[in-house]
Amino acid sequence: MDLKREIFDLLLKPRSVVLIGASATPGKWGLFILHNLLKDGYDGKVYAVGRKGAEALGIKFFGGIEEIKDNIDLALIAVPPASVLSEVERCIEKGIKAIYVITGGFAETSDPEGIEVEKKLKQLSQEHHVAIAGPNGQGILNTHINLCAQMFFTMPPKGGISLITQSGNIGVVLSNFSLHSKIGMSKIISTGNAACLDIVDFLKYLSLDEETRVICVYVEGTKRGRELTSAIESTSRVKPVIIMKAGNTGAGKKAALSHSAALAGSGAIFEDACRSAGAIVVNSLTEMWDSACILSYQPPLRGRNIGILTLGGGLGVVTADIATEEDFEIKPLPEELKLHLDRILPPRWSRGNPIDLAASEGPTTIVEVLNAMARYGNFDAIVFVGFGENGLARHVIETGKFGKTSPFTEICEVMKGIEKNVENAVFNIIEEKKIPVIGIADAVLMAREIDKSIIMSSAEKGFFTFPTPERGIKALKVLYEYSQKLKG
Amino acid sequence: MDLKREIFDLLLKPRSVVLIGASATPGKWGLFILHNLLKDGYDGKVYAVGRKGAEALGIKFFGGIEEIKDNIDLALIAVPPASVLSEVERCIEKGIKAIYVITGGFAETSDPEGIEVEKKLKQLSQEHHVAIAGPNGQGILNTHINLCAQMFFTMPPKGGISLITQSGNIGVVLSNFSLHSKIGMSKIISTGNAACLDIVDFLKYLSLDEETRVICVYVEGTKRGRELTSAIESTSRVKPVIIMKAGNTGAGKKAALSHSAALAGSGAIFEDACRSAGAIVVNSLTEMWDSACILSYQPPLRGRNIGILTLGGGLGVVTADIATEEDFEIKPLPEELKLHLDRILPPRWSRGNPIDLAASEGPTTIVEVLNAMARYGNFDAIVFVGFGENGLARHVIETGKFGKTSPFTEICEVMKGIEKNVENAVFNIIEEKKIPVIGIADAVLMAREIDKSIIMSSAEKGFFTFPTPERGIKALKVLYEYSQKLKG
Repeated sequence: MDLKREIFDLLLKPRSVVLIGASATPGKWGLFILHNLLKDGYDGKVYAVGRKGAEALGIKFFGGIEEIKDNIDLALIAVPPASVLSEVERCIEKGIKAIYVITGGFAETSDPEGIEVEKKLKQLSQEHHVAIAGPNGQGILNTHINLCAQMFFTMPPKGGISLITQSGNIGVVLSNFSLHSKIGMSKIISTGNAACLDIVDFLKYLSLDEETRVICVYVEGTKRGRELTSAIESTSRVKPVIIMKAGNTGAGKKAALSHSAALAGSGAIFEDACRSAGAIVVNSLTEMWDSACILSYQPPLRGRNIGILTLGGGLGVVTADIATEEDFEIKPLPEELKLHLDRILPPRWSRGNPIDLAASEGPTTIVEVLNAMARYGNFDAIVFVGFGENGLARHVIETGKFGKTSPFTEICEVMKGIEKNVENAVFNIIEEKKIPVIGIADAVLMAREIDKSIIMSSAEKGFFTFPTPERGIKALKVLYEYSQKLKG
Repeated sequence: MDLKREIFDLLLKPRSVVLIGASATPGKWGLFILHNLLKDGYDGKVYAVGRKGAEALGIKFFGGIEEIKDNIDLALIAVPPASVLSEVERCIEKGIKAIYVITGGFAETSDPEGIEVEKKLKQLSQEHHVAIAGPNGQGILNTHINLCAQMFFTMPPKGGISLITQSGNIGVVLSNFSLHSKIGMSKIISTGNAACLDIVDFLKYLSLDEETRVICVYVEGTKRGRELTSAIESTSRVKPVIIMKAGNTGAGKKAALSHSAALAGSGAIFEDACRSAGAIVVNSLTEMWDSACILSYQPPLRGRNIGILTLGGGLGVVTADIATEEDFEIKPLPEELKLHLDRILPPRWSRGNPIDLAASEGPTTIVEVLNAMARYGNFDAIVFVGFGENGLARHVIETGKFGKTSPFTEICEVMKGIEKNVENAVFNIIEEKKIPVIGIADAVLMAREIDKSIIMSSAEKGFFTFPTPERGIKALKVLYEYSQKLKG
């Protein structure tokens, strides 16, 4: 629907929020949502409407929205289904221009009364030029103003990945990916049943949002297919749009209907249309996340010629296999690079691509090899299998039986220095040479526990480390395809 | 080669180990390997041979193996390549029957001299009936006797998954998967260049090993294809054999040659032969791990009829899609189950399969639903999407701004109780009803940080939680196929 951008701003970047349906009773959603609103130090002001005079978390409840004298940007509604319409009307009455209805129990139950309420919400929204999101949605999250206006508790770190989702639950999954990996997100918008505002509206909004570098979309069904593809077309010229379509099978379709009231259309046709419009179409949430991470950070990938550096032989073989299967070229090393490496490596190195150091590295070896690869390799991208593994080894030593005795404390200090230098070398190649560098390491699984892990410190800057070769190489392919699209 | 089982026992379950090539110098492998041997409280005795009179980690070095008066089961050799042969001869002289050569620089370098040394090792082994593993291998690991006789530092928890690998590095990856997930391993055997003993020999050994419930094999190439498939055939009647073949592409093949001196044959033909012999053939290490985890714990899966319980709508839709694509049947719920659930759930539940509680659960709901599914569902397996997610929510509350204030401390206590009851319900269904139950939850990523996480406590008993629906469903398919094979 057509609403001014300023009104969407009230929904997504509100300076004040009221929760209607607040509760002080343990176990009630009205308490959890209030908790979430307050727990992350939201930049704006929070009000609550509930049982008059009741209080929770230091906030006194008003008995009704009209009792609040201040201006309010966004109303979150979490009252029982039968009261939703009248609460929305009271909000409009008060002049509130952005409303998010969390309450469920409408079109998704196929109940005629519920469908009727959604129609009325749409009417109200159009008549009064009010943004109404939901019903039956998980809420809104904006990390840049510390706003967690939603049912679930997560607050991912700040970053550039935004998500529009027909499932609140999927928002939680991506939040958790973000929280775990430290790669930041920007906004998460759960559309719920999308009675008034849907994916198309939010996609248009995010296409112009400066805090959003990549847009992910989880969709079960839409009645505005044409508008969606045209929004994808214009958006994907500016920033990547990643689409995942679910509810494609019989069982999935039925589940989608009872979940988001979305009549899931044919998966293949829809996906083709999205792809033609320029979207990156993915088949799983993992692929969505990996694609978003690589696209939000790495420079464009100009060609298919990659150089692989591996700290372990087997993973080098596996990576070479997958990369070949995904149509990357793994050429023999240029003579100049080989000569250079012969000077800095002991005789047992592989002398091929992948460059396998065969456990022969000294304190400066990895940095020297990476720099030589960037300088003499003619590679379009460098794949580094083992980025951060050094830190995991150090962690096992440090926390083990001899970790606090000489020479192991000293060895660990040296290892920390190596890691830091490796991290700097990788960032230099990406930033100065504009060559994408992909880090792959199973150490990423335990990276949060490793003191001064470079996997974590580089994630804070936006560099995602892939846990497996297949995930890293698939993401690299996505980067290649999007880079080609931007060129063509 | 033909060796008595007792000799293999000396290699894999030694009561004493000597490291030949020990060093006291920081940065040297001779120090790291000694460290690894000593750090986990190995059940046997450790000796070191190095610079006479030198000392490290409380162990005095002998100048040569002949100086040691005690009997020694296993010699680990980590001296420079030129000294390997003479050290092996000295070991044989002393009567040592099991030798592992870690040192690299032989056939994998394509150097004629190196190839010659490997031939001589084979001769010595045959003449003297000595088990010689390697060269160019990462070592041996046996969690059940706390033996970490290898270059790398990890020691996974005790369990039933064993690995034979042509890449030491792949052993480290699986170790890390194990360490992170707490699903235990039994033995990790790195074959290195396999000059004398190779995959076939170790597969035969592990087929009779009572501590091994599932055998994983990572192979780049073998000259004993026929013997391998026949060993797979007999082993897979007793326990599952999971095979991953790498080095199938041009670039992978070359990498394999310089890595493990393995001439990688055609992937597809080899894989087909393994599959016909009864192996489970996988394409990635993740699949290998997931398959091993499900096969080492779950009861057989009798049919394709699955029931899905989901705590989140979107993941329910995604899971239903994937399960359908993988040929599982997701039938409408039996009337009896529907009636039963109507009595315990509020009206907004999905009334379909997946069973979507739509955020309407009370303290006992999940347990009641799970039990009803096991009782009235006629399901061959139950897929529980959200197992342990509750704990992640609790973790976010507990560690947040209001975590230490009432009523949130009390809420968290209630949540802990719910989790514990859910865990018990799942284990009861598996153990008493013999119905496989698969847990799927992205919470697994952060489970190690969650105080009293049921994901971790159940992992200690062998129950693996899959981080994504696609991984869980694919593993379930592996369980189905192996169960059918055992039946047929």
